[in-house]
Amino acid sequence: MSQLEEIFLYIDKNSENFVRELVELIKKPSVSATGEGIETCAEKVERMMAEIGLETKILKANNGNPVVYGEIKGENQNKTLLFYDHYDVQPPDPIEEWTYPPFSGRIENGKIYGRGASDNKGNLVSRLMAVKSFIEVSGKPPVNVKFVIDGEEEIGSPNLEAIVNKYYELFSADGCIWEFGGIDRHGRPCLYLGLKGVLSVELKAKGASKDVHSARAPLIPNPAWRLVWALNKMKNERNQILIEGFYDNVKEPQPEELKCLEEIPFEEEEDKKELGLKEFLHGLTGKEALKALLYDPTCTINGFLAGYTGKGSKTVLPNKAFVKLDFRLVPDQMPNEIFEKLKRHLEKHGFNDIEIIRYGSTEPAKTPVNHPFVRFIAQNAAKVYGKNAVLYPISAGSGPMHLFRRRLNLPVVSAGCSYPEANTHAPNENLPINLYIKGIKFISTILYNFKLYSEKI
Amino acid sequence: MSQLEEIFLYIDKNSENFVRELVELIKKPSVSATGEGIETCAEKVERMMAEIGLETKILKANNGNPVVYGEIKGENQNKTLLFYDHYDVQPPDPIEEWTYPPFSGRIENGKIYGRGASDNKGNLVSRLMAVKSFIEVSGKPPVNVKFVIDGEEEIGSPNLEAIVNKYYELFSADGCIWEFGGIDRHGRPCLYLGLKGVLSVELKAKGASKDVHSARAPLIPNPAWRLVWALNKMKNERNQILIEGFYDNVKEPQPEELKCLEEIPFEEEEDKKELGLKEFLHGLTGKEALKALLYDPTCTINGFLAGYTGKGSKTVLPNKAFVKLDFRLVPDQMPNEIFEKLKRHLEKHGFNDIEIIRYGSTEPAKTPVNHPFVRFIAQNAAKVYGKNAVLYPISAGSGPMHLFRRRLNLPVVSAGCSYPEANTHAPNENLPINLYIKGIKFISTILYNFKLYSEKI
Repeated sequence: MSQLEEIFLYIDKNSENFVRELVELIKKPSVSATGEGIETCAEKVERMMAEIGLETKILKANNGNPVVYGEIKGENQNKTLLFYDHYDVQPPDPIEEWTYPPFSGRIENGKIYGRGASDNKGNLVSRLMAVKSFIEVSGKPPVNVKFVIDGEEEIGSPNLEAIVNKYYELFSADGCIWEFGGIDRHGRPCLYLGLKGVLSVELKAKGASKDVHSARAPLIPNPAWRLVWALNKMKNERNQILIEGFYDNVKEPQPEELKCLEEIPFEEEEDKKELGLKEFLHGLTGKEALKALLYDPTCTINGFLAGYTGKGSKTVLPNKAFVKLDFRLVPDQMPNEIFEKLKRHLEKHGFNDIEIIRYGSTEPAKTPVNHPFVRFIAQNAAKVYGKNAVLYPISAGSGPMHLFRRRLNLPVVSAGCSYPEANTHAPNENLPINLYIKGIKFISTILYNFKLYSEKI
Repeated sequence: MSQLEEIFLYIDKNSENFVRELVELIKKPSVSATGEGIETCAEKVERMMAEIGLETKILKANNGNPVVYGEIKGENQNKTLLFYDHYDVQPPDPIEEWTYPPFSGRIENGKIYGRGASDNKGNLVSRLMAVKSFIEVSGKPPVNVKFVIDGEEEIGSPNLEAIVNKYYELFSADGCIWEFGGIDRHGRPCLYLGLKGVLSVELKAKGASKDVHSARAPLIPNPAWRLVWALNKMKNERNQILIEGFYDNVKEPQPEELKCLEEIPFEEEEDKKELGLKEFLHGLTGKEALKALLYDPTCTINGFLAGYTGKGSKTVLPNKAFVKLDFRLVPDQMPNEIFEKLKRHLEKHGFNDIEIIRYGSTEPAKTPVNHPFVRFIAQNAAKVYGKNAVLYPISAGSGPMHLFRRRLNLPVVSAGCSYPEANTHAPNENLPINLYIKGIKFISTILYNFKLYSEKI
């Protein structure tokens, strides 16, 4: 019996304990948007790590939520695998739509229900349990392991860059497993090699010092109209972004990336049905739609508010208006660059009266499809799940991956134990127990084989 | 002593009673926006009329608020003067900004304070007291008098057209005094000969059946962007309205109207200071600004709502958005015409996905500057106030004047007893007692001389 077989046996024997560990963590609310339970949950994560046998440390910067760090030396001390996960969760609203209370960790029909069950406590605990299994069976894991457990992922990780700068040496590794992933509807393991960047801004326009009667409209500036005209200069009806130089640094996908798209499941009819749409934007369909989803940068109005928004009509001329926008950025568009271009563009078109507020941002990041680390994770996934891995060269979402990919220069692959019906960020978030246990075995397999991994292969 | 001198004497002797009558009416809240006190106030107005000696009638249509009608035959039964006023008032909000309670009718420093003190209970009661004075002194007024007291003026008189259609014969007259007016800062009586029309609409756009994560923006339509693009097709940055045919029926002001503008006080520096503006739209100033205010049709965003409008940012793609707009219309633009043109324009530009909801509307109306009725009222105003009347050929505001001007074919002049510091529609609305008493004498003078009025003069 190989060491890995022993580990699998141990995992099967201890699956009830492992489920209990996850349920206990789900029971600790940790909503970064409101701050609810953050400190308590961070302490719980640190305690879990310490009990397993990891050396832990609480990392803080700028009064942000604690990042829980843990590490342990392995049999082979020349290889280090770093896990990026997060203990914070999305708010559970709308609570009335949950079948079971969101922080109950209730188990029904073989599924663990609760906010964070998949995103990201399920993944986080599956990684911890894999390491625990090696320590229990063999005294230590096969390679060095590091955990970086964020407490602000769901609010854009505003302080993680400062943490990475402050504790730079602590984060050295040979590869990084990112926080999310799972199987598709055909049971194939999906791996994500990159993320789009994002830049959130607010445009504010002001008119008179107070709202006035709309009879005065011939003389009084209207901030809502100012925003309409400014926005119209930013994106046209074909959704082409008009900000000067916006597309300058957009890189076309590599041929090997386009090849990956062929394998990616894209259930467009289900998506359209879910959203009540007859067709996607511009009638996009099939691989063209998938390519747009993954490779098109965007400029989205998240919110717009001006004047009277109650029932019926009111003849008022509002004195202030704002619009909230986000830009999804693709390699190699940078938030700083786009922010400066937006500022210049509005100035150039005469919108100096509009105030631009910058909110959070992250840079895009991706690991090349043909990087040895990608091949390594894909091979291990295929072994565990019995099906070839599906490679997403980039994901439509965003996150602080660039700090690990570019600042720390690590190859990064996102892989996890979730599935399409997990209801991530929605009511009735859940994780099937069998997928959770499979996830622990997947991570164990990666740890076991990582001693043989080489960038040179 | 002439009859009018007797009347003036009677007014001076009874001024305390007349003030009490107004205060009692102010104490009856009658907020048409909420319905508060409407029925009770209508009954009170009818009782006041009946006590004076008028025949009264409650007019209703479409379940709207009652219109209180009153009439009395005069010495000269060949002439009839009709008064249009309203007993409903604006909501008193924000209540905390009132120095005295809004429905107290408190008297301080010679001013009567309260919601409706000027608009329109002050004017309404001043007219009633003028008629009462003639009845008390001489048994009847010099000419036939009719009162049409609206209960929905502050919400756009949605049912007055039905009332006019239903009771058409009741409203025959030789001239109509409209509900508002007063002196300017130099003590000159201001008369208003017309009103702009107004058309209120809402544009609604829909996207998916629910809000989605903004990562999906490359495929999912964004209703907020749809409205931005539609609006941009409706008005450009120079505030030119782009709806096809919008300006077709706009009539240039007549030379005699433009001459009137020379006399109209326009305190632009005070206006700018009040509103915290360095300059008016497009740098308009002086007579150009005044002309724009009175003669330019407008398209105003009253309100805009889409998506997330809380603090900070949220990466959401909203599934619905709406914008509320009003158009101020000048002679001879008609709301029905403009609504049809708006619909066609949006269709033509590919915005069939946008739903257009029509709210209230009124047509523009004006009585020619050189109409004998205008000259008649102006002469009487000059006699009473000792200064030449200022004629506004049209006002920037709106109201149901067209029903009387066009449907009933009456010459209409708006004249009243208010002043620039009356705080109409604002906290601390008030009316100085001396102006109120002067207003009663002004109306009495008009009634006294109206027997000699002829359209032929």
